[in-house]
Amino acid sequence: MTETIIEKRARLLGPNFSTFYKNPVHIVRGEGVWLWDNDGEKYLDCYNNVPHVGHCHPHVVEAITKQAKLLNTHTRYLHEGILDYVERLISKHHEGIESAIMVCSGSEANDIALRMAEAQTGKKGIIVTDSTYHGNTSAVSQLSYGRNAIGGVGDHIRYVRTPNSLSDNKDNSVSEAEHFAQNVKLAIGSLEESGHGVSALLICPYFANEGFPTLEYGFLDKAVRQVRSAGGIVIADEVQPGFGRLGTNWWGYQKIGLIPEVVTMGKPMANGHPVASVVTSAEIIKSFRQAFGYFNTFGGNPVSCAAAAATLDVIEKDKLTENALSVGDYALNGLRELKKEFPQIKQVRGSGLFFGAEMCGKDNIPLTQYAEKIAEKMREKRVLLSVLGPNRNTLKIRPPMVFSKSNADHLLDTLRSVMKEVECEF
Amino acid sequence: MTETIIEKRARLLGPNFSTFYKNPVHIVRGEGVWLWDNDGEKYLDCYNNVPHVGHCHPHVVEAITKQAKLLNTHTRYLHEGILDYVERLISKHHEGIESAIMVCSGSEANDIALRMAEAQTGKKGIIVTDSTYHGNTSAVSQLSYGRNAIGGVGDHIRYVRTPNSLSDNKDNSVSEAEHFAQNVKLAIGSLEESGHGVSALLICPYFANEGFPTLEYGFLDKAVRQVRSAGGIVIADEVQPGFGRLGTNWWGYQKIGLIPEVVTMGKPMANGHPVASVVTSAEIIKSFRQAFGYFNTFGGNPVSCAAAAATLDVIEKDKLTENALSVGDYALNGLRELKKEFPQIKQVRGSGLFFGAEMCGKDNIPLTQYAEKIAEKMREKRVLLSVLGPNRNTLKIRPPMVFSKSNADHLLDTLRSVMKEVECEF
Repeated sequence: MTETIIEKRARLLGPNFSTFYKNPVHIVRGEGVWLWDNDGEKYLDCYNNVPHVGHCHPHVVEAITKQAKLLNTHTRYLHEGILDYVERLISKHHEGIESAIMVCSGSEANDIALRMAEAQTGKKGIIVTDSTYHGNTSAVSQLSYGRNAIGGVGDHIRYVRTPNSLSDNKDNSVSEAEHFAQNVKLAIGSLEESGHGVSALLICPYFANEGFPTLEYGFLDKAVRQVRSAGGIVIADEVQPGFGRLGTNWWGYQKIGLIPEVVTMGKPMANGHPVASVVTSAEIIKSFRQAFGYFNTFGGNPVSCAAAAATLDVIEKDKLTENALSVGDYALNGLRELKKEFPQIKQVRGSGLFFGAEMCGKDNIPLTQYAEKIAEKMREKRVLLSVLGPNRNTLKIRPPMVFSKSNADHLLDTLRSVMKEVECEF
Repeated sequence: MTETIIEKRARLLGPNFSTFYKNPVHIVRGEGVWLWDNDGEKYLDCYNNVPHVGHCHPHVVEAITKQAKLLNTHTRYLHEGILDYVERLISKHHEGIESAIMVCSGSEANDIALRMAEAQTGKKGIIVTDSTYHGNTSAVSQLSYGRNAIGGVGDHIRYVRTPNSLSDNKDNSVSEAEHFAQNVKLAIGSLEESGHGVSALLICPYFANEGFPTLEYGFLDKAVRQVRSAGGIVIADEVQPGFGRLGTNWWGYQKIGLIPEVVTMGKPMANGHPVASVVTSAEIIKSFRQAFGYFNTFGGNPVSCAAAAATLDVIEKDKLTENALSVGDYALNGLRELKKEFPQIKQVRGSGLFFGAEMCGKDNIPLTQYAEKIAEKMREKRVLLSVLGPNRNTLKIRPPMVFSKSNADHLLDTLRSVMKEVECEF
């Protein structure tokens, strides 16, 4: 069965269409933090942030069903669904956030955000980190360092080195924040010299794909001041940290003390329904709408807004941000206990329900293959997680927000037994 | 109420966020070809192609509900929903179409199609018409002539004049097809001279936004031969004509006798659920997947595929293509009768349930304002339609595919009374 489906997949969806795991999982059912495969085996989902309030949450399913039965059309007619939702969404942000564009994917949101920056600043240059991912459109996929094989990358993009909480500035002459700011300054200089100027620093304020290094409040302050001095703005990509996942705050930018001009949101926004958004000030949305015609047929339709509103309902009613904080702290403590047993765990870090452990050998050599083996072995024991970071040696644990302390125990117990089994070259 | 909602909309969604009609419609419910506003007034929907099998079709709603209750996750796990659907979808196409990428919007589909062409041909140049629209991403929105205010349009794009079925080649020395081919040849020459080369001709084979001029089978043959001789491929954008709307065929490219290397589909695909796709040969999908990393979180998720499959079910089971042909022919005859009464109807044209009438004054002067007045007055009489074409003087009638002869009578009777009321400068 599995072999047939894999062959069919390669034929119909093309080669190099990646799956998770050497032995991919054939999932047929989901509920809360649980997934079931086609043999009826049950998996603990420690990976998926898209089903934010839990797989197949009945309140979200009901909202989708009710609205899909009643009306699903576009925003060139008037409808209160989008207005009520946007009012709620912007109230979760800082007071400079006044308006929204609703779209279908985080990629579409970031694609718009780049044009908002261009319309507002009159400049083209974009600064991103060298280990990031902001989406899959032609414009946005170029921001992923080293991903595009042909045609090359636009001359208006500059990559800056990802901050590292293992701190390889061994002489301590400059802090990581200062080092980051220096690199941003070099990027600004280069963009100005090439005539593009600085349009935006586009950043995941949790540096999620960068391996979520532990960074202090205010880490970005100097870099951001420089970007603004050069006439640029800051775009916070909240596709991963947003909607309370970090436990301490609704948004990653609040945790690091950043006040972005534009914020993009996606994946968890409607618990899996294709919904994303870009929010900004009245001034910037006006600049954008004057410079570019923009309409999105599916964006902000009544069903999408109902799904997104229902997801907000559950986060609020079930206090899922608070749950993320307490369960996340509990799991981090558990990982720290594990670190005492296994020296290859170099650093335990994270916030709320987005945490992990970086695996290193002697002299901080990244244990990339080892981390991958752990993820594979966890899958065999039916606990789903992954790896990430510049060296892909950090365990990526990012479960639905209804993850409990008992689920954390299940994860930690399984991880302990897997780490005992998998040989480590440390 | 309406004034409040309009103000709220401007505040929350930004200025210049267009609505249909000077007096926008506040829609709250839909069923089949009918929409209801917040005062309970009922409108005949002659415009919306997204609810392809009718607003809120119970079979599609049920499929969405059932799958949303069971599982909604992404394509990095195995799932049969996407495979079964893609198998059905490609079977509707010519035999060179073997694989698909599932995405969320027609914009995302066209954005990928451009990169497929680039990966396959190693070239960058794109040829489109000067009255087209292929979507809203940074890359794709540039293909809409005259839309982008700042930053300019990429030097790799060439616009060719839209074909015109009113035929302004008055000396008849060359046909419209020959004229179109000549313009494509000039574009090819210009792209080669500038070093971009020809990557693709991207075309809606029904020339929908161009005002769906009446074009003969084989119209594109010479232009397409030239594009292929120059090493380029042809992308058919079926977002508007596809899924049987034209009555005579499943796809617009079949009607005009084109065999495209890549086909994009969107709006009507899942009756309003955010689903779109790009299909192509095994060879081209391989080129694309080797050149670019591509993954779409929401694309091809089980709920989206269930919605799309249910939409196909209804088209097939209720023979909606056949319905489009018979009702479309009936309505075209009705419009031809109307033409006898009103000389400002210069040409009646269309196919299946995508038809309209071009309004001209003396010497074929486009009656742009008049056509708009007609659309506004129709809205006041609760029949929803619009205008399109290079001069926006052609009525755009493109209802859900369950439109009946009785609905056509309702449309025609209302149009007759409106045309009697609205003064025409003819």
